[in-house]
Amino acid sequence: MEASPAEPLDRSTPSGRDLFLEFDHRRGHLRRSLRLAIRGAIQAGRLGTGTPLPSSRRLAADLQVSRGVVTDTYDQLAAEGYLALRPRRAPIVAHVATVAADSAEPAPAAWRFDFIGTTPDVELFPRRAWLRALDRALRVAPNEAFDYGDKRGRIELRRALAEYLARVRGVRVDAGRIIITQGFTQALDLICRVLRARGAENLAFETPSLAAEWQTVVASGLRVEACPVDAYGLRTDNLADISARAIVVTPAHQFPTGAVMAPARRTALVGWAAERDGLIVEDDYDAEFRYDRNAPGALQGLDPGRVVHIGTASKTLAPGVRLGWMSLPAALVEEVRLAKTAVDSGSPALDQLALAELLSSGEYDRHVARARQIYRRRRDRLIETLSSRLPGLPIEGAAAGLHVVLRLSDGVDDRQVVSAAATRDVGVRALSAMSLSDDPMRGLLLGYGRLPADRIPEAVDALAASLPPYPS
Amino acid sequence: MEASPAEPLDRSTPSGRDLFLEFDHRRGHLRRSLRLAIRGAIQAGRLGTGTPLPSSRRLAADLQVSRGVVTDTYDQLAAEGYLALRPRRAPIVAHVATVAADSAEPAPAAWRFDFIGTTPDVELFPRRAWLRALDRALRVAPNEAFDYGDKRGRIELRRALAEYLARVRGVRVDAGRIIITQGFTQALDLICRVLRARGAENLAFETPSLAAEWQTVVASGLRVEACPVDAYGLRTDNLADISARAIVVTPAHQFPTGAVMAPARRTALVGWAAERDGLIVEDDYDAEFRYDRNAPGALQGLDPGRVVHIGTASKTLAPGVRLGWMSLPAALVEEVRLAKTAVDSGSPALDQLALAELLSSGEYDRHVARARQIYRRRRDRLIETLSSRLPGLPIEGAAAGLHVVLRLSDGVDDRQVVSAAATRDVGVRALSAMSLSDDPMRGLLLGYGRLPADRIPEAVDALAASLPPYPS
Repeated sequence: MEASPAEPLDRSTPSGRDLFLEFDHRRGHLRRSLRLAIRGAIQAGRLGTGTPLPSSRRLAADLQVSRGVVTDTYDQLAAEGYLALRPRRAPIVAHVATVAADSAEPAPAAWRFDFIGTTPDVELFPRRAWLRALDRALRVAPNEAFDYGDKRGRIELRRALAEYLARVRGVRVDAGRIIITQGFTQALDLICRVLRARGAENLAFETPSLAAEWQTVVASGLRVEACPVDAYGLRTDNLADISARAIVVTPAHQFPTGAVMAPARRTALVGWAAERDGLIVEDDYDAEFRYDRNAPGALQGLDPGRVVHIGTASKTLAPGVRLGWMSLPAALVEEVRLAKTAVDSGSPALDQLALAELLSSGEYDRHVARARQIYRRRRDRLIETLSSRLPGLPIEGAAAGLHVVLRLSDGVDDRQVVSAAATRDVGVRALSAMSLSDDPMRGLLLGYGRLPADRIPEAVDALAASLPPYPS
Repeated sequence: MEASPAEPLDRSTPSGRDLFLEFDHRRGHLRRSLRLAIRGAIQAGRLGTGTPLPSSRRLAADLQVSRGVVTDTYDQLAAEGYLALRPRRAPIVAHVATVAADSAEPAPAAWRFDFIGTTPDVELFPRRAWLRALDRALRVAPNEAFDYGDKRGRIELRRALAEYLARVRGVRVDAGRIIITQGFTQALDLICRVLRARGAENLAFETPSLAAEWQTVVASGLRVEACPVDAYGLRTDNLADISARAIVVTPAHQFPTGAVMAPARRTALVGWAAERDGLIVEDDYDAEFRYDRNAPGALQGLDPGRVVHIGTASKTLAPGVRLGWMSLPAALVEEVRLAKTAVDSGSPALDQLALAELLSSGEYDRHVARARQIYRRRRDRLIETLSSRLPGLPIEGAAAGLHVVLRLSDGVDDRQVVSAAATRDVGVRALSAMSLSDDPMRGLLLGYGRLPADRIPEAVDALAASLPPYPS
């Protein structure tokens, strides 16, 4: 039954024609479209709480649709909580909260010259090789690869890593003791969880080290305890003074100083762990990029029962891949596996299979070798340029990795240099900002991972202009 | 200078020829190969702590290599901590711990008939569409996509989800308030972390619900508080009795009972949160699979300032993808972002870009529609078969999702049925195992996601044979 346009209007309810901006009249689209239109009007606040809607009969007439469409729509919106239905009366809009406007997206920071240290050149990410690996993985993966699975990670990747880590890093592990993580950060978080569940209250770190990692520790409820480093790596003579029974170290290439841990200290550190029944967490973040000779093997090889070795694809491939791996003492595997289960039910399968493909095919080694060549040229160019433009300032930690440390003249505040550099659109980090001690080392971290060799002279000029005059 | 075979042997050190099984004599391979051979012998325990090695001169002679190769190798192994060098004497093997043998890999469980409820059919994972999406993402992604980025996740995906969630689920969110996670598990873990940091001691759950989720809560240091459900979803009349100010609910399709939350209860729940300044965590895990009519819109739409809406690709694509998303109240975004930063520095980029592609191209909707058709056939076949073979037992929760609940006759212990079914190689779960209360609901969760329609009659027969006789 059609309503006549001449019918007198009930002023207490809005007319259907006034309610909706637009909806789709086509068969099969009508109900859904009408529902979205009314819901949208309520959510946007155009129909406020308590507003009566037209009766289904009235609305059907106004919109020239069948009454069943309207009653279905009202029922659905009532089931969702947007409308309150009343017997023999028109429905009213239920209480629906309004919401603030869109929050702005910050633009990613981009420097004209980027010396930010820990990140590799994402331009070098091997897109084609990665796609080939994904393609092959998608072709051969069993269906169960797409299901929940072993929370330690895909067996294909754990096997490939066990072989790779033994060959390249001297790590002593089998696939059963490897757990795949979302990069180093999650590996550290999992260790913190397990330590905390065991009753630990703190975790020792080298100083200087990376503040973002302290954040992960603190967020898990542990305190960070500091142990200083010098030119030979961790000062093991200070180990007796710390109360923590676990320590995070970077023996192959201390971050950020670049020191390589001296052999006697490696032995002393392992001895400390054995004596205290402690745990060493070895952050082996960039050992693949060693320029002068073979990288020293992982500390883990000296005592696989007390060292957790953590590796990552963030330096060799790209941080966005978010893949890391832990080689665990047998006694820790089950606890870490349960922690991993609780925090995310395991890592994504396909990326793991792709990385396993890269490792098994040798493409990973080839990519690392190519990248090492490129980084070596950038490193050599940087050292050469620094030596000629800033001859008075020592360069340290250049044997490996993606950054060097430039020490500053006495009395120069590295944080002030960072600020001055920023005004010249040069991104650089201060060593003192990475210190846990009151008397921090000072210097600049100069990452060369992201600087093409031909731009380095210009970048060093811009940096040099940010430094105060220094004695020649 | 070559050593003569007639030279008298120093019995206190092993001969070089006895030490190594094999190494590669080719130019460019020699140093590395020799180092790995000695290191391997030490790690395997064949060269024990304190064993003296031959002098570099002697070993060079024995192996017919230059002395420099041996001294370099000894230096490197000393740097790694495997050897102790002594001035003018042969090096000795340092203390190196031995390690237990390989741990066995458990085979994944596979049932002849799999009624395990929450997982979709991984055979349906759209491998080709996913590869195309990855391919396109790899072609068009900016380099910064492979870097550390916004810890909330890729903006491309957050924008696509904001549009999708508004359209399909009535969620009111903008990209700035979405945070990408490793599935529902990590979303829950992040919420727990934030609640705990705010001083919360507990978190309420529906009972019955999923024990794995309680584990995530307990592992984060919170206690689980129970709130019962009935055929109309959460019993909101019990909300006044709980002490928690936050609750996890499944309004669209209660897990595991399958109940759809009644409109009045949706309103009451939102009212409870407003009154107590509380938080509702809406686990919207399988709303895409609704068979009888449109799924009720998300509860979040009623109060975006107090409801966290969590969605996942685990049901629509596959669990192995490990992608989930949270739509957060504005006041929680920064805390959750910081928690995400602390636990894993953000989710993998490429999978996010691929999912954004699938959503934007409409391929995601098409895949869901195809899968819904398949699951609907399986559901209809299951209901039809259960009704004819086990006519006395009520079937519940069939309107949506990937499982139904089969209620059992009075006095029948559902866990005993599960055990009996297991002996027939039928995987099925008991409702009572998901209860937080002393007087659990009893019944069987029958997932049909993984059962091809033509195998269902046989599967139901095997299940029926596991049941005790019941009144006809």
